[in-house]
Amino acid sequence: MTSIDRAEQAELIATAAELADAAREATLMHFRSVGLAAETKETTHFDPVTIADRLSEERMRAILALRRPQDAILGEEMGATSGTSGLTWVLDPIDGTRSYLCGTPTWGVLISVADATGPIYGLIDQPYIGERFEGGFGRSEMTGPLGRRKLGTRAARPLAEAILMTTFPEVGTPEEGAAFRKLASQVRLTRYGTDCYAYALVAAGQIDLVVEAGLQPYDVQAPMAVVEAAGGIFTDWQGRRDPQGGRVIAAANAEIHAAALEVLRGA
Amino acid sequence: MTSIDRAEQAELIATAAELADAAREATLMHFRSVGLAAETKETTHFDPVTIADRLSEERMRAILALRRPQDAILGEEMGATSGTSGLTWVLDPIDGTRSYLCGTPTWGVLISVADATGPIYGLIDQPYIGERFEGGFGRSEMTGPLGRRKLGTRAARPLAEAILMTTFPEVGTPEEGAAFRKLASQVRLTRYGTDCYAYALVAAGQIDLVVEAGLQPYDVQAPMAVVEAAGGIFTDWQGRRDPQGGRVIAAANAEIHAAALEVLRGA
Repeated sequence: MTSIDRAEQAELIATAAELADAAREATLMHFRSVGLAAETKETTHFDPVTIADRLSEERMRAILALRRPQDAILGEEMGATSGTSGLTWVLDPIDGTRSYLCGTPTWGVLISVADATGPIYGLIDQPYIGERFEGGFGRSEMTGPLGRRKLGTRAARPLAEAILMTTFPEVGTPEEGAAFRKLASQVRLTRYGTDCYAYALVAAGQIDLVVEAGLQPYDVQAPMAVVEAAGGIFTDWQGRRDPQGGRVIAAANAEIHAAALEVLRGA
Repeated sequence: MTSIDRAEQAELIATAAELADAAREATLMHFRSVGLAAETKETTHFDPVTIADRLSEERMRAILALRRPQDAILGEEMGATSGTSGLTWVLDPIDGTRSYLCGTPTWGVLISVADATGPIYGLIDQPYIGERFEGGFGRSEMTGPLGRRKLGTRAARPLAEAILMTTFPEVGTPEEGAAFRKLASQVRLTRYGTDCYAYALVAAGQIDLVVEAGLQPYDVQAPMAVVEAAGGIFTDWQGRRDPQGGRVIAAANAEIHAAALEVLRGA
């Protein structure tokens, strides 16, 4: 991990907060508006991009251009911009665009800072609820309707008492879906449709597991930072820390992580 | 429908608001608390009842005992209490207790007033977000993070462009699940895990359809009032208005209602 002194950490945290505030304003400008247009990026499936996704990323990039021109950027909508500092801002201006289009409040803005090892600080922001979950540089906290709270993952418990979340019931490929269903059959409760909000709930000590597949770097890096800082584990289905995404498991603790991985690998 | 004058309507609306405020306080006292205990009502499946469900209903019943002793009450946790006015308060102190236990913000408090024809006024309250959706006695509006807004359902569009929601992917019995999946295969987007929040999104003009099964009177009556007041249609899978629940469809307009019913009946 790159050596970053306290002053630089504070500057990165403050920059992330400014980005999140700007993205909050941009996304709320269009959330719940009637007739929000969704174009389709790919022709094989419904993948909506809204004017709000682009506006949110543009606003964040404008701030970084002024405040952190030395850093690289990887954004979902506008790709990669190179830098000289060794640090990269990884941005998902709206994670869960389908959720955003439907009006449900589980979409979020994902912002993280990565060095060569992966994310070292990240935040998950839910603009409509007014919630922000942060992790990294010694911080692990949230602010929201109930005020400011420390984050911290749940204590270990048997798989049979665990709560599991994912976004789509099909999860990914037929094989990935089958592995997920095997795991789901062994937990107490499985919930769907949660987008990035599920990772925040692991960090907040509300649930035990999130399992997803087919994720991109900008989908996973902020959640990885937030979950890790709260005491959780965020790996691929082989148990490796992989900031590139793909098949992902976020777990509240080492015990439930090991138990879930055993089921996923055996499927 | 019972004849209720303006003054009585205003009194019922004000009473419902007082109930919702009390339930908001009771439910937020325990939401996101660590170690919230869930007992199991039935042994065949996981059906959590929390201290918050009971506290929320107790607070509402205490208000009704003082303010509306002449009305009957039907509540999820404490059953039926008789009255003399011909009106019944139908209360679900926490609809979506699983969601509440997981920390997701799609649970809600459901409050409605029914006469012999079914619900004539209702509200859906989401305490954590601070959102309230109301319908009946000429009102159809919401308050929330973006202020006060009129409710109104979406215009008609083909099934292939519709957004459909439900809570659990299995929906109900195997037959009910199969009918749902046939409908889901014909819409643009299906989302899960939405609890009572999905009905609010129909009323707010965000989505086109909610289809569920196995519902109770206290699950359906407030959503029915809110959706109908916003211009939508709320029936069973045969197209009948049934305040008792069971198999339910809420639709933004008559066209999408008819198209969805045709698929559900043919399955």
